[in-house]
Amino acid sequence: MDTPLVVVHYEKMIRNLDRMAAFARAYRVRLRPHGKTHKMPQIAKMQLERGAAGITVAKIGEAEVMAAHGCDDILIAYPLIGNEKVERLLALARTVRVSTLVDSFEGAKALSDAFLRERMRLPVYVKIDSGLHRCGVQPGEEAAQLVRHVVSLPGLQFLGLLTHAGHAYAAKDARDLQRIGQGEADCLIETAEILRKEGIAVQEISVGSTPTVRISGAVTGVTEIRPGNYVFHDMTQVRLGVATEEDCALRVWARVVSRPNKNVLVLDSGAKTLALDRGAHGVEGVSGYGRIVGYPDCVIERLSEEHAVVKVPDDCPLSIGDVVEIIPNHACPVVNLTDQVYVIREGQSAEVWRVEARGKTS
Amino acid sequence: MDTPLVVVHYEKMIRNLDRMAAFARAYRVRLRPHGKTHKMPQIAKMQLERGAAGITVAKIGEAEVMAAHGCDDILIAYPLIGNEKVERLLALARTVRVSTLVDSFEGAKALSDAFLRERMRLPVYVKIDSGLHRCGVQPGEEAAQLVRHVVSLPGLQFLGLLTHAGHAYAAKDARDLQRIGQGEADCLIETAEILRKEGIAVQEISVGSTPTVRISGAVTGVTEIRPGNYVFHDMTQVRLGVATEEDCALRVWARVVSRPNKNVLVLDSGAKTLALDRGAHGVEGVSGYGRIVGYPDCVIERLSEEHAVVKVPDDCPLSIGDVVEIIPNHACPVVNLTDQVYVIREGQSAEVWRVEARGKTS
Repeated sequence: MDTPLVVVHYEKMIRNLDRMAAFARAYRVRLRPHGKTHKMPQIAKMQLERGAAGITVAKIGEAEVMAAHGCDDILIAYPLIGNEKVERLLALARTVRVSTLVDSFEGAKALSDAFLRERMRLPVYVKIDSGLHRCGVQPGEEAAQLVRHVVSLPGLQFLGLLTHAGHAYAAKDARDLQRIGQGEADCLIETAEILRKEGIAVQEISVGSTPTVRISGAVTGVTEIRPGNYVFHDMTQVRLGVATEEDCALRVWARVVSRPNKNVLVLDSGAKTLALDRGAHGVEGVSGYGRIVGYPDCVIERLSEEHAVVKVPDDCPLSIGDVVEIIPNHACPVVNLTDQVYVIREGQSAEVWRVEARGKTS
Repeated sequence: MDTPLVVVHYEKMIRNLDRMAAFARAYRVRLRPHGKTHKMPQIAKMQLERGAAGITVAKIGEAEVMAAHGCDDILIAYPLIGNEKVERLLALARTVRVSTLVDSFEGAKALSDAFLRERMRLPVYVKIDSGLHRCGVQPGEEAAQLVRHVVSLPGLQFLGLLTHAGHAYAAKDARDLQRIGQGEADCLIETAEILRKEGIAVQEISVGSTPTVRISGAVTGVTEIRPGNYVFHDMTQVRLGVATEEDCALRVWARVVSRPNKNVLVLDSGAKTLALDRGAHGVEGVSGYGRIVGYPDCVIERLSEEHAVVKVPDDCPLSIGDVVEIIPNHACPVVNLTDQVYVIREGQSAEVWRVEARGKTS
C-alpha cells in the first residue's frame, strides 16, 4: 500500500446504502442505483441485496462488466447511437434484461429496426430534459410526440419517462433544491398525463440524482429512483447540504512530499488522483480541490497531474512524510482514475477491490 | 472501434519527435523526454531511437513499466518520500540506471541511508523552483545549502540542478514566454556558479517544459532538456503559440448522440475522455473543452462525465450519428484516461497501442 491511495470506509458506505434502501422502501419506489459512481460489481451486489431492482449504468462497457458479474437487470441510461453500440446491445440483450433510453426519432428507429430484425423487443424509456439542458426532449408536447413514435415502433417496448436533474448541482440553496426536485418529478408526471389521456400506458416515472432524490422520489406518481453518488458522497454533496463530511465514504490518502516554505506544502495526489472537478455537470461551487480531514485551514489551491499544492497556516504541523486523508470534490471521477480501492473496515485488514468497470467510455 | 476513441496521427507524431531530436542535436543538449504524456513504451523507444539519452517519468510505477519494456536509463522526476517508494526504487536501481531528484534535507537523507545500507549510490538532481512555486528549493543560497548536504551524503551521487518551468503555461504572450524560458536556465546556471566556486562539480543543468524548451534549451550551459507534451501537442500549446493545430497528433473521435435543439448538440466524449483541463498546472486559458476540427464556430461549453455539450450555430450541419475529431486542451490526462490509443497512418490499417503506464499514480 503506497500513496496516493483511494480508500473506502466500509461502515460509512454501508450506512449510505442502508439509508437509501430504507427511503425507497418507505416511499415504495423502485431503487435502481446508478453504478457509475462505484463501477464495482461487489457494490452493485450489495445494492441488490438491499432491495435494488436492478442497476443503472452510463455505457455499454459498464453494462457488460456488470452482466458478467451477475447483474441481470441493467438500464443503460445513455442514448445509444451507432452500429457498433447497437450490435453490442443486441448481444447483451440475449443474456440479461437490458433497457435503455431514447431522446431522438433517429435513435429510436435504429434501435427498433435492429431488435425487430432479431425478433426481439427492447424496453426503452423516453428521456426528458427537466432543466439540465443536456440530453432529452422537452416535457409536454415535444416529449409526447417522441413517445407516440416509440409506441409505434415494433422493436421497442415503451416503459415510461425518465429524467436526470443534474442542474440540481447548481442549486442556490435548500429551497432552490426543493424547487428543482419537485420540478423533476412534476414535468414527467404532467407529460404522462397527456399520454394516459390518449390511452398510452406509462408504467415508469423514473427520476435520478443524489441531491434531489429525497424530494422527487417522494412525489406521488414516481415509480423509480436512480441515485448514484449516495454510495460514497463527496464535498459537492456536503456543499449542497445533502450529506455531511462524516457520510463521505470515499477518501484519498496522500503524503506530504515537499514543504517548499512554511505556508505551502505539496501532496502526492494530483489531478490524476483527485480529478479537477469543482462540482458536477460543469457546475462549480466547491472551493479547493478536496477537503483535508482534520485540517480545515489547509486549502488545496492547485493541482498538477501528480501534485496538490496546499496553502497552510504558519503553525501547520504537517511535515514531509506525513499522510493526510482527503475528501474529494467529486467521488465518481476519482473512482474512474484508479484501478483499485482499499476497503477499510473496523477490526479487519484492508481489502483490495478492483474497479472492474473503470475506463469504460463506450 | 467504437466512439469515443483516442486517436494518434502517426505522421504528425513522427514529425514532432523528429523536430525535437533535431533541436537537441543542433544545440548539443541531451534529450530526456518526459514519458508522462504518452505513457507508452513504444513511443519511448521511438524517442530513444532518435537520440534521446533516456526517459523521464513522474512516478516509480511508470519507471517500472518503462524498465520492463527495455528502457535502461530512467529519471524519476519527483520527490520520492516514504519507505514503500524507497524499497521500490532500490529494486529498480538493481536492474536499470535510475536517477531521481530531491528538494528536501529529509528526503535526501532517507534515500542516502537506504542506498548506503545496500552499498549502492543513487544519482540525484537537486530540484529548483524557477517560478512554478510547486516543489523545489529557491535558486541561489537556499539551493546551494541543499546541494552541500547532498554532496555530503555517501549514498547519493550529486548530478546537477533541475527545474520545470510549468509557470510558462501562464505566459501572457511570446515575450513573457521568452522571459520565463530564459529565467528557467539562468537561475540554474547562477546557482551552479556558486557551487562551482566552492569546487562542487555540477555536471547537469536540466530544464523542461514544452513551451520553454526551445528558449531555455538554447542557453549556453544547459546540458539536458526534458520536454514531454511535444510528442502530441494540444490546444494549450496552440494557445501559447508553441504549436499549430496541424501539429496536434493526439485527437479524440466522438459521436453526436443528441441534438436537443438547433443550437445544442451532445457528443459522447465527456470528462472521462477529454478531461476537465483548461490548461496545465492549474493555469486556465483555453476556451471550451477542446477544439472540434473543421467546426470553429462549435464550442464545447460543458462536460459531464460522459457528455460534451456543444453550442453550435443555426446552420451547423452535424446531426445524430456524425463523428467529429476533437483536439483536446491537454493531451496528457486524455492519455491517462484511456486504456489504448488507435494509431492511424496513411496507407495502413489502424493499430491499437496499449497505454501500458496508464494510471500509475504511485
